[in-house]
Amino acid sequence: MSGFEHLFNPRAIAVIGASPEANRPGAQTIRALQERGYAGGVYPVNPKYDQIAGLRCYAAIKDVPSPCDIAVIALPAALVPDMVAECGRHGLRFVVVFGGGFRESGPEGQAREAAMVKAAREHGVRIIGPNCLGLVNVHSRAYAAFGSLARAPYLQPGSVSAVIQSGGFGNSLVIRCATAGIGFRQVVASGSESDLSAPELIEAMVDDPGTRLILMYMEGVSDGRRLVAVAERALAAGKPIVVWKAGNSEQGVKAAASHTANMTGSYDIYRAAFRQCGIVQVHEMEEAIDCVQCLLAYLDRPAGDDVAIMGGSGGSAVVFSDAADEFGIRLSTLAPATLALLQKVLPNTASLENPVDYAAGFITDANTPRFRTAVNAVLADAAVHQLGVLFATTTGEQARNGATVLAEAVKKHNKPVFTFLSVPRETMGGGMEILEQAAIPILPSPGRVVKAMHVLAEYQRARKKTRTPIGDRPASIGKRYAPGTASEHESKEILKTFGIPVTSDRLLPAASVSAAQLADIVFPVALKIVSRDIPHKSEIGGVRLNIRDAAELSAAADEMLKSVRAAAPTAKLDGLLASPMIVDGVETIVGVVNDSVFGPVVAFGLGGIFAETLKDVTYRLAPFELETAQEMIAELRAAPILAGARGRPPADVAGLAQTLVAVSRLAWEMREALEEMDINPLLVRPAGLGVVAVDALLRFR
Amino acid sequence: MSGFEHLFNPRAIAVIGASPEANRPGAQTIRALQERGYAGGVYPVNPKYDQIAGLRCYAAIKDVPSPCDIAVIALPAALVPDMVAECGRHGLRFVVVFGGGFRESGPEGQAREAAMVKAAREHGVRIIGPNCLGLVNVHSRAYAAFGSLARAPYLQPGSVSAVIQSGGFGNSLVIRCATAGIGFRQVVASGSESDLSAPELIEAMVDDPGTRLILMYMEGVSDGRRLVAVAERALAAGKPIVVWKAGNSEQGVKAAASHTANMTGSYDIYRAAFRQCGIVQVHEMEEAIDCVQCLLAYLDRPAGDDVAIMGGSGGSAVVFSDAADEFGIRLSTLAPATLALLQKVLPNTASLENPVDYAAGFITDANTPRFRTAVNAVLADAAVHQLGVLFATTTGEQARNGATVLAEAVKKHNKPVFTFLSVPRETMGGGMEILEQAAIPILPSPGRVVKAMHVLAEYQRARKKTRTPIGDRPASIGKRYAPGTASEHESKEILKTFGIPVTSDRLLPAASVSAAQLADIVFPVALKIVSRDIPHKSEIGGVRLNIRDAAELSAAADEMLKSVRAAAPTAKLDGLLASPMIVDGVETIVGVVNDSVFGPVVAFGLGGIFAETLKDVTYRLAPFELETAQEMIAELRAAPILAGARGRPPADVAGLAQTLVAVSRLAWEMREALEEMDINPLLVRPAGLGVVAVDALLRFR
Repeated sequence: MSGFEHLFNPRAIAVIGASPEANRPGAQTIRALQERGYAGGVYPVNPKYDQIAGLRCYAAIKDVPSPCDIAVIALPAALVPDMVAECGRHGLRFVVVFGGGFRESGPEGQAREAAMVKAAREHGVRIIGPNCLGLVNVHSRAYAAFGSLARAPYLQPGSVSAVIQSGGFGNSLVIRCATAGIGFRQVVASGSESDLSAPELIEAMVDDPGTRLILMYMEGVSDGRRLVAVAERALAAGKPIVVWKAGNSEQGVKAAASHTANMTGSYDIYRAAFRQCGIVQVHEMEEAIDCVQCLLAYLDRPAGDDVAIMGGSGGSAVVFSDAADEFGIRLSTLAPATLALLQKVLPNTASLENPVDYAAGFITDANTPRFRTAVNAVLADAAVHQLGVLFATTTGEQARNGATVLAEAVKKHNKPVFTFLSVPRETMGGGMEILEQAAIPILPSPGRVVKAMHVLAEYQRARKKTRTPIGDRPASIGKRYAPGTASEHESKEILKTFGIPVTSDRLLPAASVSAAQLADIVFPVALKIVSRDIPHKSEIGGVRLNIRDAAELSAAADEMLKSVRAAAPTAKLDGLLASPMIVDGVETIVGVVNDSVFGPVVAFGLGGIFAETLKDVTYRLAPFELETAQEMIAELRAAPILAGARGRPPADVAGLAQTLVAVSRLAWEMREALEEMDINPLLVRPAGLGVVAVDALLRFR
Repeated sequence: MSGFEHLFNPRAIAVIGASPEANRPGAQTIRALQERGYAGGVYPVNPKYDQIAGLRCYAAIKDVPSPCDIAVIALPAALVPDMVAECGRHGLRFVVVFGGGFRESGPEGQAREAAMVKAAREHGVRIIGPNCLGLVNVHSRAYAAFGSLARAPYLQPGSVSAVIQSGGFGNSLVIRCATAGIGFRQVVASGSESDLSAPELIEAMVDDPGTRLILMYMEGVSDGRRLVAVAERALAAGKPIVVWKAGNSEQGVKAAASHTANMTGSYDIYRAAFRQCGIVQVHEMEEAIDCVQCLLAYLDRPAGDDVAIMGGSGGSAVVFSDAADEFGIRLSTLAPATLALLQKVLPNTASLENPVDYAAGFITDANTPRFRTAVNAVLADAAVHQLGVLFATTTGEQARNGATVLAEAVKKHNKPVFTFLSVPRETMGGGMEILEQAAIPILPSPGRVVKAMHVLAEYQRARKKTRTPIGDRPASIGKRYAPGTASEHESKEILKTFGIPVTSDRLLPAASVSAAQLADIVFPVALKIVSRDIPHKSEIGGVRLNIRDAAELSAAADEMLKSVRAAAPTAKLDGLLASPMIVDGVETIVGVVNDSVFGPVVAFGLGGIFAETLKDVTYRLAPFELETAQEMIAELRAAPILAGARGRPPADVAGLAQTLVAVSRLAWEMREALEEMDINPLLVRPAGLGVVAVDALLRFR
């Protein structure tokens, strides 16, 4: 818990700026602590009062008894920096600053914030906030909070901890989960995060033995790699992080004006990061609730994409199948032995093949042993990773019987079991309570059963994936490159050192060459000017394609030098590049952006209009392994083109994946030097022939 | 009500096959009628009993007192056809057949079904079912139903009528809506629809004065145009149809093996049809509930895409904005006068520009008059079509105050008002009840407020759209074409008569031509063989491109005739087509499919890999107007290509839209003759230069 145990479980809480006025934030904190029966010390601090809310009020923080682990500061911003220092001097390690008036309020506020953070660093104090609702430990009823975090509806204790970056909406998410029956442990509204950041708080929650799952409302983080490192730890610990990321329509990180960089939207990078480190992203309240409930229910069970469904409602199975197609959930083929058992116990009108339809009205008292046999047979089938029972409108005795059978079965089989039910609790003859006690998720639509199964399967897949940690590693190639854009030739030489195939170019001097000197070149070739000072070659006559022989090349060289010298008289010319023409490849674009939040990121898309016009681009944080590269390729909408559309041979996707991995290694190793990189095009040749970078530019900072 | 009033509001119900065994379907009907207090006559029919459930039991339907409007038939399938006839002879106009055993159970069942329908036609009886849960009139408590339709949870009366094509899942949808507080009028489970079909039932509901909205769970209809015609009537009457369409992953209609037809998936056509006639499609329970509630609340209010939001939670506004971007909902720019008013009444920390942030904790008793002024100012702003107030975690007195102000404002302004609230009823100080009484929708996330606004705006847009009814019109061009594939030349001649631009071709005889005869042709041209018997010309050497002069053309003609005669010796050759080469167009594909459910449908996509490989195709039922054609073009993912990507001039989208309209007219007028049509490619030239069909094939049946 690396020192956070006293933040999450404070022995006493001081409230600086306490007030007898009930609406003031400090008063709200004290009221919550008293009403909820917090067992630790509560110390109002305000020189104006002797007593507040029946408690002794202290004139200053130095008068407060020790140990006191948290001071809530409910003072005007101007007084906060000194108060933080005073708290530190008195041995407090954590303060919660409720109010605003810091960097969001102009230059004066910025100075105040800097002073506050400086005081905190100097005195060994960590700050929650400012501009936040504070935090709550639900188990110990420690409310260092105000506003909606410190009033009804109060949370019930449980194993979910939450970090919320907006008090109002984040707590809406928490409350909606709580209303659905989810219990909480720590809830921290992190506010402006002047000191303690969301990743650090999540890390403390990963270390907290009582936390099994972390819920987050996120608008953004300043250190993306820290978030990733923490998420990797959480994944290793088997504690899912469920994130609602908002603010996605914002411009985000300003990327440099190159081709690839223009394709980069920061939300795309967040999504890539989440995917890479197993963070579960949600976009709606119900989705968040389902995710949290179903992950908690079956964290320790293996879960795959092959599932069975059983029910008495054909329509529900149809709706399930529609959603299953969308989420890659497959209806397993049941084993002959399973089908034989089903045939023995289910009625004639039943449909035995998955989806198993046992016919509406089947689960009478008399038929319950048969239903039990059927459920156990399906769950025992090795082809079935998860089971959904679509009870739909089942009520009364049949609901109770069905629930009883599932409650037994879920204990016997180490597989996730879900139910779809559309009827209210009071019509279920106690069936709802039986399912709840067995912790079997009850979902209100077949589609939500599918999504729950999908989330479990994805999370288990993320856990099993072998990966190099990408959260934190030292760069091996530092700032040894001159700032600015490298020439095509230099860029390709660097690519080669990382094993990225480039065209076999011939660098000619920036001078006239006789045809005789060019006899050994394999034609046709393209001729390009080489100069650090000319990033856009073709615009000034610096590119000639399809040169068929040495004589033509010699003439083209003279012409090109003339044209380039006229258009860019000050450019230093490094030479001319004769590059073989390759015509059997699919054009792709591979880029690297050094994102201000997440560091080096690889972007990949198809050339022509796909990446640029249609924004069909995929991103991953560098470095990554082959499996991730394969995912990138597969997730492009234009992926079928690489598979060989319209009579083309399939492209060398294996070689492409290897090259993406190599690019990701380059991006990572060179991250201290590299601003961005652009391979455009990277030609993907027919399977077996590999890929080749035809043009490339690296830009250093 | 065209005769359906006695189905929907029966004066008496006979239950044929009534039984004293409580679990039997007939017994369930009688129990529901008795328990729920149906005021009409209930007549059990079964020769074995004198009394059932305390009611006189009749030996035969002819003994039952008149008037009796519905007979429920709970008998084995074999007895049903005769019983239908007997009911008809006794003057019953409607029967409900619960059981299965008809066409779904093999040839014997099919014969039984045919006999049943024949009996019904002969005796003037209409059938609900077979294989269905029956129907309920909630207002008159008329249960001609069994299973989940005839037991708790019972529905509350209201203005929503429902047609459900699967009892189990459809009734799940109804029950979930009911649990959310939606009241119902008619609920009909239409079963196998041997006689009465879903469109006919919907039509009866459109005619029912007490029905304001029709909810449907649909797996498919056999007469798509009838559905469309009914939906057009519903739209004109201002009664929304909300549909959950399932079974979308099925193969659907088998389309012929041509190029365009292969792109056709029947679900795409359903979606196109829904969109064209204003049917609101939903995909999840919560979405259905929101849709129904919000449409009912604001059916009569104008609603556009420009909205304002107000709240005290910045995060909620961020989440709203994310969703708004996705659904085309725009945050209005408030007028200076509105901002001036807001500045006067809102606190210093407020953010006045839309999203209006009045700062958390603002709506105290003292501030309520200011909040009222602010809400009215925003609602009075002409730029604001709808208002969302994001209360989020607001509780107690502030929730009550906020609710009170909104309840007053929603009466004063003819604009939709929604709230987002995340706290439970009991913490709201009565605010929830105030909102409910004012019928202001309370939604549990900002995203669901966005979607509700979007649904209203879309529905209003659909109502306002001028359109030619497409549900039903006579075909003007009947079966006067020979079955089979027309040649390219014939096909193009037909296109011309509909005003579809085609290349200015020159038809040459299928014989040697001297260069002199070709002197007036404008080169370059393509040369193509013309034959009804050769649909795939290029495979046998029947196409030559880029012919530069008369001599080359003369030689190519000889060569082509030789090659084609060798490969297809029996083909009747109509000639050779010299066609100008056009190189400045974007390749598109326009197809017509004569769908077995919906009739003539136009498909449109971009050429190359877009339509074929990437399935980027859009569909609409023919005929349609310019606005619909424009929608089709805009909704392609590849649409930016037509707008002029990568330095190309913008393509002639106006000409393209006109041509799509012309194609839709051709598809409609020729529907009795046309099997399918394929224009591939239709070149869209730069703006102002129009479009031109380079190749075209019509196939007749």
